[in-house]
Amino acid sequence: MSDDPRPATDSGIPVERLYGPDASDPTPRDPGEPGEFPFTRGIHRTMYRGRPWTMRQYAGFGTAARTNRRYRYLLESGTTGLSVAFDLPTQMGYDSDDPMAAGEVGRVGVAIDSIEDMRLLFEGIPLEDVSTSMTINSTAAILLALYVAVADERGVPRAQLAGTVQNDILKEYIARGTYIYPSEPSLRLVSDVIAFCSRELPRWNPVSISGYHIREAGSTAPQEIAFTFANGLEYVRRALGSGVALEDFAPHLSFFFAAHSDVLEEVAKFRAARRLWARLMREQFGASDRSARLRFHTQTGGSTLTAQQPLNNVTRTALQALAAVLGGTQSLHTNGYDEALALPTEESVRIALRTQQILLRESGVARTVDPLGGSYFVEALTDEIESRARVHLDRIAESGGAAQSLDYMRDHIHRSAYRTQLAVESGERVVVGVNRYVEEGADPPARAPDYGALEAEQRARLARLRAGRDGTGAARALERVREAARTDTNLVPPMVAAVRARATLGEISGVLMREWGRYAGQ
Amino acid sequence: MSDDPRPATDSGIPVERLYGPDASDPTPRDPGEPGEFPFTRGIHRTMYRGRPWTMRQYAGFGTAARTNRRYRYLLESGTTGLSVAFDLPTQMGYDSDDPMAAGEVGRVGVAIDSIEDMRLLFEGIPLEDVSTSMTINSTAAILLALYVAVADERGVPRAQLAGTVQNDILKEYIARGTYIYPSEPSLRLVSDVIAFCSRELPRWNPVSISGYHIREAGSTAPQEIAFTFANGLEYVRRALGSGVALEDFAPHLSFFFAAHSDVLEEVAKFRAARRLWARLMREQFGASDRSARLRFHTQTGGSTLTAQQPLNNVTRTALQALAAVLGGTQSLHTNGYDEALALPTEESVRIALRTQQILLRESGVARTVDPLGGSYFVEALTDEIESRARVHLDRIAESGGAAQSLDYMRDHIHRSAYRTQLAVESGERVVVGVNRYVEEGADPPARAPDYGALEAEQRARLARLRAGRDGTGAARALERVREAARTDTNLVPPMVAAVRARATLGEISGVLMREWGRYAGQ
Repeated sequence: MSDDPRPATDSGIPVERLYGPDASDPTPRDPGEPGEFPFTRGIHRTMYRGRPWTMRQYAGFGTAARTNRRYRYLLESGTTGLSVAFDLPTQMGYDSDDPMAAGEVGRVGVAIDSIEDMRLLFEGIPLEDVSTSMTINSTAAILLALYVAVADERGVPRAQLAGTVQNDILKEYIARGTYIYPSEPSLRLVSDVIAFCSRELPRWNPVSISGYHIREAGSTAPQEIAFTFANGLEYVRRALGSGVALEDFAPHLSFFFAAHSDVLEEVAKFRAARRLWARLMREQFGASDRSARLRFHTQTGGSTLTAQQPLNNVTRTALQALAAVLGGTQSLHTNGYDEALALPTEESVRIALRTQQILLRESGVARTVDPLGGSYFVEALTDEIESRARVHLDRIAESGGAAQSLDYMRDHIHRSAYRTQLAVESGERVVVGVNRYVEEGADPPARAPDYGALEAEQRARLARLRAGRDGTGAARALERVREAARTDTNLVPPMVAAVRARATLGEISGVLMREWGRYAGQ
Repeated sequence: MSDDPRPATDSGIPVERLYGPDASDPTPRDPGEPGEFPFTRGIHRTMYRGRPWTMRQYAGFGTAARTNRRYRYLLESGTTGLSVAFDLPTQMGYDSDDPMAAGEVGRVGVAIDSIEDMRLLFEGIPLEDVSTSMTINSTAAILLALYVAVADERGVPRAQLAGTVQNDILKEYIARGTYIYPSEPSLRLVSDVIAFCSRELPRWNPVSISGYHIREAGSTAPQEIAFTFANGLEYVRRALGSGVALEDFAPHLSFFFAAHSDVLEEVAKFRAARRLWARLMREQFGASDRSARLRFHTQTGGSTLTAQQPLNNVTRTALQALAAVLGGTQSLHTNGYDEALALPTEESVRIALRTQQILLRESGVARTVDPLGGSYFVEALTDEIESRARVHLDRIAESGGAAQSLDYMRDHIHRSAYRTQLAVESGERVVVGVNRYVEEGADPPARAPDYGALEAEQRARLARLRAGRDGTGAARALERVREAARTDTNLVPPMVAAVRARATLGEISGVLMREWGRYAGQ
């Protein structure tokens, strides 16, 4: 036998030469019906025959006006949902004119300082029709307040707003890093958003519990779902503790996973995840079917893309997107092939979207529910991934849950990432174009927009806002936020009032930071 | 339910909402063991764990020297087998200086007129190590003679030569069109090559029975395998009739299929094809396991590529290549994304090869045998495709076999192609970038080499050959070919002698045409 392919999945699960029917068990196994507990084969009876997945391309860079043009291009090209990428200052609670923001304004996403930016971001886009996902965590409540305030201005009923805020702070501490406040007040903010949405925004997902960044940070597939669910269970317990009824929020919990290149392991992961979440919710909270259904967004694996020979990333993204569709995702972002080099161009964004359209329209894989169901190999991997994830979940439960297990999760992610790194360096794990099939001169140079000019433009806009607003009104509204932070009054309504009074994101976040302090780090 | 995806495969096989275990049958179905009759799960016990598929990129254009450079580039880039594309004059038996060749020299493949071209084509490439496939039919015996003559010159033992000549004339009459002589003498040439190889070239596949062109001409997946096997059975009967023992040639029959975009239908097609061929060979000829194994090459679907937004073809090719690998192909050609526009560039050829390498090294699908085996949907489609192919095979058998059923097969291909065309025109069948998601200005212009210059260069080479050779010796060698054509002496040995005497391809083919006449057409 040759040394390749290695007889273990990317997550280290041993793979046998052959999987077949279980000779010792005369009754055929039955993975159950889609649309029925535990949902192994899908959360809907008809899946994509009834309704295709949402093609939701994550985008945002520079200013709100510039990002708005990209959104319109995406909508014209057939994307069916928006997904907002924010720049680092916005994620960390800094205005664009804060010294801490220098050099980062508009880089990894759009810069949003105030309601004026939010108006521009969605100009000409009907908020009553589109669904909008926002990748925002520490400042999720503020961005949600901004979205609601713009919708209110336009007269769009809150009950019609559809979308998601990521609002998943625990994975920031363990994998992603855009935390601001200590974990306890941060978790209270998560619960406030959940409670606000359960009352005001019936079509909104108040949290998108994210394994994506856990996986991108180097975890295995079983760790990705285990740690995501540990965080999810923590949010459920906290929301219940804050007095919201399970059935009022659990059906609106959404999840976010990565799709990496080991196609069938990923398909099995998604199937295992559905079954495991349903069982956990039933076992621990007696959840109804509706509250036990795992609804998830998927993004193809940014960390799998290579700067070398970047068009190879079209192939990687196609295979990863296929895995997500075969795994029954509800929505999907496909990466642009040049994302390892720079911001995606209009061309690479179009190709990424076309990849989804080819999967839906040409590949045939959406015609029947869970088309790989019954595959001896996929069913065996599904069982194995669920079982490995359970081991982690049991340990985390013994320690008192996710908030008490941040070190445990960080440590396991780092160990997995290290093993992968060693395997790549030794060549045992091949990355085409990087440690094998390397070619000189095949890599184009990176391009970049003029970030300095974008930053100056954004600061000038912000200066005009500060000069032109009613400063006393803004200060008064910020004071209401401070008062709410000191009690257990829900923070979202005073935030809506504050952004309406043209208080900035940095000002609101600053109030909370002064009240609560900063997370001290690991 | 929405109108998309349509509830039938690309071949028109109805697709149910859900496939599950058969409640009426308490015993689990068992698709059997790979490496054992009828080989549904693969022809080898370990499949790609034992040995990866051969990455065999079809290439050839312009002159032999230019094509030789491309082959060296491919071998350096990690391709593991060669596949020669010949220009139309070479396929049709015309030398480059024939008036019929004008404007076609070196266009769709390399121009080969004589042993001098063949020497250049393989210069610096070790014929004892590489395996070479040649897509050549009417003139297959001549090209095989050229290959053998070059190997003889280099002192490479014939027993070490590994490769394939397509040599499948029946599908030329029904789908591809590069026939010259009437069917009876053409079939005799096929048998001569089979008999020659069984004696002289134990590692050579004397025929590659090709469904690829049948599919590209518009057939469905079941028709593709049915018509291919009808042709294959005809060759087997003829070879047996010419006195070669079944076990001396049947293990060396090879097949060639297309991989189109309907991923799971294609996987099922490959599985059904293996099982059906094994059963046919057992039923009709009592073949041993070794003679009943279906070994096949796959090429991704050229006709599925679009000139519009050509980078979308990277996605299509990746999905099609995945289907071939999940289906257990022995070797694979992946198309360059720009092949709908022009000859593939070095860049597009590299990306196509990298697609295979990513499938082997990163996607994990080669780690276990027949990874989709047991999938309720894939197993049901496998049964259905086998059953539909059987219907065609039964009708063809009733008419006396493939040679008597050329019209039947042509007619069914045309009807299927017409139905597909109507579906595309009505928009019922979506082709991304063509009849939906169309975008102005996204299509690059086609490039082309200077064919006129290439043609002039090739004609000059040929003129030097004719001026410099021993004309009497060449004429005498051609006379030996004529004598063999009039009797049932095997034609290959006198052809080897003729090419060694620097007789040209056009001269040898001309002798046969004068003896046998031309195929009168449909």
